[in-house]
Amino acid sequence: MSAPAAAKGLEHVVLGDSAIALVAGETGGLSYRGYDINELVPNATYEGVVQLLLQGDAPSPDPPERLSAELHRRRVLDASTTKLVDAVPLGLPPLEALRSLLSLLGGPAWSYPPTQDQALDLVAKTPTLLARYVRRSAGQAALPDRPDLDHAAHYLYLLTGEVPVPAKARALEQYLVMLADHGMNASTFALRIVISTESDLISAAVAAVGALKGPAHGGAPAKVSDMLDGVGAPENAEAWVASALGRHERLYGFGHRAYKTEDPRAVQLKRIAKTIADPQRLAVAEAVETAGVAALRRAHPNARLFLNVEFYGAVVLEAVGLPRELFTPTFAVARTAGWGAHALEQSSDNRLIRPDVRYIGPAPGRLWPGSSS
Amino acid sequence: MSAPAAAKGLEHVVLGDSAIALVAGETGGLSYRGYDINELVPNATYEGVVQLLLQGDAPSPDPPERLSAELHRRRVLDASTTKLVDAVPLGLPPLEALRSLLSLLGGPAWSYPPTQDQALDLVAKTPTLLARYVRRSAGQAALPDRPDLDHAAHYLYLLTGEVPVPAKARALEQYLVMLADHGMNASTFALRIVISTESDLISAAVAAVGALKGPAHGGAPAKVSDMLDGVGAPENAEAWVASALGRHERLYGFGHRAYKTEDPRAVQLKRIAKTIADPQRLAVAEAVETAGVAALRRAHPNARLFLNVEFYGAVVLEAVGLPRELFTPTFAVARTAGWGAHALEQSSDNRLIRPDVRYIGPAPGRLWPGSSS
Repeated sequence: MSAPAAAKGLEHVVLGDSAIALVAGETGGLSYRGYDINELVPNATYEGVVQLLLQGDAPSPDPPERLSAELHRRRVLDASTTKLVDAVPLGLPPLEALRSLLSLLGGPAWSYPPTQDQALDLVAKTPTLLARYVRRSAGQAALPDRPDLDHAAHYLYLLTGEVPVPAKARALEQYLVMLADHGMNASTFALRIVISTESDLISAAVAAVGALKGPAHGGAPAKVSDMLDGVGAPENAEAWVASALGRHERLYGFGHRAYKTEDPRAVQLKRIAKTIADPQRLAVAEAVETAGVAALRRAHPNARLFLNVEFYGAVVLEAVGLPRELFTPTFAVARTAGWGAHALEQSSDNRLIRPDVRYIGPAPGRLWPGSSS
Repeated sequence: MSAPAAAKGLEHVVLGDSAIALVAGETGGLSYRGYDINELVPNATYEGVVQLLLQGDAPSPDPPERLSAELHRRRVLDASTTKLVDAVPLGLPPLEALRSLLSLLGGPAWSYPPTQDQALDLVAKTPTLLARYVRRSAGQAALPDRPDLDHAAHYLYLLTGEVPVPAKARALEQYLVMLADHGMNASTFALRIVISTESDLISAAVAAVGALKGPAHGGAPAKVSDMLDGVGAPENAEAWVASALGRHERLYGFGHRAYKTEDPRAVQLKRIAKTIADPQRLAVAEAVETAGVAALRRAHPNARLFLNVEFYGAVVLEAVGLPRELFTPTFAVARTAGWGAHALEQSSDNRLIRPDVRYIGPAPGRLWPGSSS
């Protein structure tokens, strides 16, 4: 039995060192390897952020020619891979399907330790696998690769069959940039534990997708859209919020353990939403934001509650044309870059991650029923 | 940036309270809810241990009639499930296949929070899924359920098509009892993280299988058999061990972070191996044990190095007739009980598991190439 006090949820326990992302919760800062999210969102491509996260350096120029070509080459599935992934039965929720699609992508080529090639494969293939499955489930044929489209635009094209207008493609790209990493979140932590046993990157990514699925992590943005539907019009927001809180229901899109001030991604996503969202939808969202923050602050005067990334994230993903069952899978598409970076970092100086627990059950020495001891 | 010192690998960090298993590493004790492994191995059925772990109490009498009937009912796959899992392409390594089989078993029926029913389903169906896949891959038809066989014997029957002799069935059952839980190991920890996001038991079990796959957790027992093959005869053991250590190769089956003395499961497994293993194989294993412990103690005079569960675990699994690619999957079959118990315990008082990291990368404020900031 261990003596130290329990650190429930491991809050404030420091797992180790990382050079990938700095989440400055008190000041509302997020940076990847020294580049602030407010510097990246206007300036960086997703490909550039992939290079930054996986290879440790910013590309110059951005987009990085070699890495973009690598991602492009790897995003095209070969015949044996399509056969494997087409085995996934149709009609599953896309995130459940993605867990199985990635699992079926696994095999000896992914052996420990994770490599740059494996990480690039994970980033490149995840959108193709997901889009192929979504189209198959809708009775639509998979689309041929469009070499002229970059990662974000190509993902939208693979889903919709249409080349997105630049404003939508860029909005999605900025979403992918913002969601590409967030330090030691639950999915990344699960991934690092799997890597710490010297298991493979696919096993680790599959674990991460499973963790992302939970509404306390990445599973909530579709519920934001449902909430906005429920509110319907801006003038209903205050009463709707009061009624939901009166029923002790959760308001989706509010609060984050790491941030004690505004989440910088929420600020950026609101700005983007204002440029591309339907004005009526935006008005509902802004009314819910105002009513929600006010009501939550009244209910929890000492808490510092702000919007999280999911609130205007949902509005932006709606505006670029994604159905809500693809919101969390799209979060996963973005986060593959961070997962790859964390897998590489974990394996570069590996140590099995295995905490203690304080045992509070019955004392040893009980006799089993019928035992002759 | 967090100030506290890093707890690399979370060694000695206490995640929280648990009433499931007590791993007493200093004294070599392992107990489930107060029942010592040395009390359980001679006396308990696997079904009894499932009841103990999932429902919190020892059954009386053991085997527990109701729970045994529940497991029996649930182990038979319905037509829609067989269709789903038969989608997994043939010829994958069985543990890779199990990750995909379990992932495909998922869906809305497994929604958070985990339930007793879900946990029993996981325990009951895992052997059937695995055996069905293994037989399909070998070009063999799945076998009809045998209502007269309990969990362990039925698993062997489903794989081999033969009802095992009682000594082998009981040896496998004792292995399953011993491997059913081990506190906060890496696979269980990954599972609890997934549950902590309010994701589902299947996503969590899939994460656990991925973590178990790593040779630093459950992926090594087949390598023990490979090692014994390499040694070949008892008289080669000393030279073989010296040569392997000279090449800085790992000796599989030695050492465990938790135990500073003999692992009680290793002691039990050696005793069982002596009753059922081929005498020549046993002689090789004993010679490697002696040579390995002596050599490792010479190399690391201050370490307390003993056999772990995998060494004689491999010898026992060989003796009951399992091929080595099924060793880690069989570990997973055993551990589903513990995984279920930990999922239930985690969700009963849930808190998102999300540690901090110490950021050691470049300071924020860098300008992106081409940025006009």
